[in-house]
Formats: sequence, C-alpha cells, structure tokens
Amino acid sequence: MGLLVVGSIALDSVSTPFGQTADTLGGSAVYFAVAGAVLHPVQVVGVVGSDFPIADLERLAQRGVDLAGVARVPGESFRWKGKYSYDLQSRETLETRLGVFADFRPTIPPAFRTAKFVFLGNIDPELQLGVLDQVRRPALVACDTMNYWIHSKRDLLLELLRHIDLLMINDSEARELSGDWNVYRAAQWVLARGPRMAVIKQGEHGALLVNGETTFMVPAYPLQEVFDPTGAGDAFAGGFMAYLACTDDLSPASLRRAMVYGATMGSFAVEAFGIQGLEHVTAADVRARVRAFKELVHFDVDEQEP
Amino acid sequence: MGLLVVGSIALDSVSTPFGQTADTLGGSAVYFAVAGAVLHPVQVVGVVGSDFPIADLERLAQRGVDLAGVARVPGESFRWKGKYSYDLQSRETLETRLGVFADFRPTIPPAFRTAKFVFLGNIDPELQLGVLDQVRRPALVACDTMNYWIHSKRDLLLELLRHIDLLMINDSEARELSGDWNVYRAAQWVLARGPRMAVIKQGEHGALLVNGETTFMVPAYPLQEVFDPTGAGDAFAGGFMAYLACTDDLSPASLRRAMVYGATMGSFAVEAFGIQGLEHVTAADVRARVRAFKELVHFDVDEQEP
Repeated sequence: MGLLVVGSIALDSVSTPFGQTADTLGGSAVYFAVAGAVLHPVQVVGVVGSDFPIADLERLAQRGVDLAGVARVPGESFRWKGKYSYDLQSRETLETRLGVFADFRPTIPPAFRTAKFVFLGNIDPELQLGVLDQVRRPALVACDTMNYWIHSKRDLLLELLRHIDLLMINDSEARELSGDWNVYRAAQWVLARGPRMAVIKQGEHGALLVNGETTFMVPAYPLQEVFDPTGAGDAFAGGFMAYLACTDDLSPASLRRAMVYGATMGSFAVEAFGIQGLEHVTAADVRARVRAFKELVHFDVDEQEP
Repeated sequence: MGLLVVGSIALDSVSTPFGQTADTLGGSAVYFAVAGAVLHPVQVVGVVGSDFPIADLERLAQRGVDLAGVARVPGESFRWKGKYSYDLQSRETLETRLGVFADFRPTIPPAFRTAKFVFLGNIDPELQLGVLDQVRRPALVACDTMNYWIHSKRDLLLELLRHIDLLMINDSEARELSGDWNVYRAAQWVLARGPRMAVIKQGEHGALLVNGETTFMVPAYPLQEVFDPTGAGDAFAGGFMAYLACTDDLSPASLRRAMVYGATMGSFAVEAFGIQGLEHVTAADVRARVRAFKELVHFDVDEQEP
C-alpha cells in the first residue's frame, strides 16, 4: 500500500504577526509527508541543494518518511520567503529562489514505482505527467496545482487532468482554472475533464469533496490561535491520502473520513510555525480531533417535526 | 408558543448580475417572517408608509404571518437600493431612504407580549431595549445588529447584550464589535458580555453556534445558482427561531437542528429574487433540504482505524 508524494522541499522564511522563521524546513512534499506519516509511511521524491540542512530532513525518517527518493545535487536549495497579513487572510511572497528546484526532473526509485496512492504536489504539469509515466497502475492519483501553471501551462494541465483521479486545489485556483466563480460549478467543470473527484480547499472555511453523485463538506477546525497557515493545504492532502492508504478503502464513507483526517492535519499544521505543529502529533491526538470534528458538525434529523 | 419579530419592512430595489427588482417587498422582519412562517406562525411588529403596496404584505397572512403589529403611518416607506458585485461577494448601497422608519417606535400589541420567542431585528439598540420592556418573560430573546449601531450606539448595544440570550450577527460585525479578527475569540467576547449563545453568520460559508461548552457549524447549502443574497441572514434567523418555537425545545440537539433549519431557509432565500424563493416553500421542501444537509456533512467515525 505504498503512498508516494512528489513535490517541493524548501527552506521557508515566514513572517506572521506572531513571529518569524528563517530557512526552516518546508515545501509541499515535506508538509504532505510529515502530516501523512502520522497515519501511514510516506515515500518522498524531491530535490535539495548542497546547502540543505540534511539532518533536519533525515529527522523525519523516524516519523515514517522514506527519503530514498530525495536527490541531493550541487547548488542552492529552493527558498521561499513570505509575509502574512495581520489577520492571516492573505500573504505576500517576498522572495522565491528556485535554485536546484528549477532543474528538478523527478526520478521515481524502483521501490516506489508500485505505490498504490500517488500525490503529485504543485510542480510543472509536464513533470507531473512524467511521474505518471514512471509509476505502475496506482489505485488513486491525486494532484495539486497553482495559478502559475494554470496560466503558463494550461494545455499540459488539461492533458494531466485526463490521467488523474482527483484534483485537489484551492478555491481561487478552481475559479481561475474553470473561469467560473461558483466553486460548485467549477468542480463540475473539473469532473467533465477527467478526474472522477475534485477536492476544493477553502482555507479557514474548510474543504469540499465533489464527485458525480455527492458533495461532502468539512469545515476547518475552530482554532482561537493560528500561528502560521503555511503548508495547511499540503498537510490536508497528506492526511487525506494517508487515511486512504492505511485503510485501502475508496468507498464513499471512507472518502468522507479521509476529508476529516485531512482537515485534522491541516488544523495541526497551522497551530505552530513550520512543521512543528505536525511533527509531534500522535495517533491519539488525531483520533481525538477527528472525534471533535464529529461533534462540531453532527446533528440528528428529527423525522417527526416540524 | 408565540414567535415575535420586530424589524424593518422595506421596499427593496436590488441589482445583481442576473437581473434587478424595483420596490419589492423586503426588510429584516419580512424575510424573517416569510422564512419562519413555513414552520410556525410569526407575529410581526414594524411600520410602513402610506405609499406601501399593502396587498403585497397582506398576502403573507395566508402563509401564517400575523400583521397585527404593523403600523401604517403617513409618509414614505423605508426604501433600500443596492447593487451586488459580479460574484455576489460584495454589495454597494446605492440609496437608503428611511422615511417613516426613521421615527419607528415599536409598540407591541397586547396579544404579542406573551411571545415565548422574540427576535429583535437590526434596529437601533435603544428601540430593541424598548421592546424588551414590553414583552413578558420570553424563553429566548435573540438579537441582530449591524456595524452602524456598533459604532454609533456601542454603549446601548452593550447594555442590550446584558438582556438577551443570543446574539446573531455576521462575521464582519462580530469582528468589529469585539475588535478581534478571530471569529471564535469574537464569539467568546460576546458570551462574556451577557448572551449565553452567539450565532455568527458567514454568508456562503455557513454559520456557527457557540455557547459555553460547544461550537457547532453548519455550512451554506451548495448552490450552483444564486440569484439574490438579500435577506439570507434574516431568513436564516427566521428558520432558526421558528424551529425552536415549533418544537419548544432548547436542548443542545434542538439548537443544532435549528441551525440547519436556518441554513435551509437561507438557501431558499438566495435561489430567487426578493422573497420569491421563500414564498412558495413547503414543509416537504424544507424536510428534503434538511436531509440533504445531513448528507452534506455526515461522516462516521471509524473507531478501529487508523
């Protein structure tokens, strides 16, 4: 039941109203892996430069993250620097230095090629397609993308959609991709182009899963303190995919639970800077929060009244 | 089990990307009453001018709206004119003419004074306090307000909070009132000032109920077509209060269902212009949508895995 993620491994410098970090471990593959590994081992394919603090990454191996697919190549590591607004509702990218990530060509190690669950993090859709050429009949391929690729590589992205099972994107990306501001119509637009499922992430408002028959919504967990929204979406993806991998169950009921596990991991991600919020989470913490989600949305339909 | 609403009765002229209306029936008390009356009779206290198309209002009596508290006085009726953005996410007030509403002093008819459930629509908090002096020991008093009163009559609003059970406001109003951008902290701020419950409405993202022990969230119903968001919050309030009135049950489980009935009425409100979406809703329509809400958020916690 291999679970594979291909994506960025970065050094993030983040500023929020509550503090700042400099060159700390980040990137889509890292957030995905740290979140997912709480539930199921995660195989990572990515690249770092010769300046990367490799011990920080190797620490994750103890948590169940398999780093056999992480290439270390000469050059500077990918760095991202961002600043959040006072209410964490928006962020500004202050600096992006791609470094070795600019020439990243994912090579999937033979042992990872039979992964049953594959997550294509937000990278060039051409590279995402290249990953699909290297894996053997996964049960579920999910994919993220971003506005940059929607504009610059639209045709390749549409080609990619024909080969994946699930597109998992932000609401703003769903709107840009489909040209429709209504997220439910945007989701239908996606489904008409290949994927049988769409997950639309709405940040502090949760996420929705749309497939042919149903829509399922999970809110974001109500947190009185949010320190750093960075990586919440990737942590969501990690929790979602890892739940499916460890249960090996793609039934509608299981997909709903996977959404809740995703939202659970997203909530742990934002409670501390960088990956700190996720790094010490236990399976018991996860179970408790999943039950709290149930309490948050549960109601009984009274068949009699009114 | 009387259910009383005091609020505005207006003639709205609304423009959305999908059409426009001119001088059609609107106002907080009207939306509340039309929505609530699907479940339980509603007693309305408000004022209209001599130019009001009274037949439009009287039509609502057939739906269970008791208009005995609506005063008709010489002068011009309250008119509001607004225009929504292309995505319905924001609106601009083009014109507000208070007319007779400027001198509105609610007088509760004797037959309404024993109402067990009271909703104080968005009017001057001084007038809201005046209503409380006229009613006899209601079981639940809920109250709405708006940014205008938060700024201009803050002290009276804080006094009002000491006398109500539930404050039901928009997220932006909760933030302005509390001075805190985090809606969960804002809700706690409200609870510390009198009400034992706060409902924070988040438009297309649903609503949350916070009391001392728990938080409950209901999403907005996923609609591919929204025509006119006007009155959705008041329709929510009408559904919420009418559910409680017709069940006469203030238990935690009933309050959760009331939130769902509120969201249900809000969803019918936005599906057509003005009150049209609500005016023909049947109890069966409501039950079907409540069940759809259940399907939208329901998941089972798997106690075994992962």
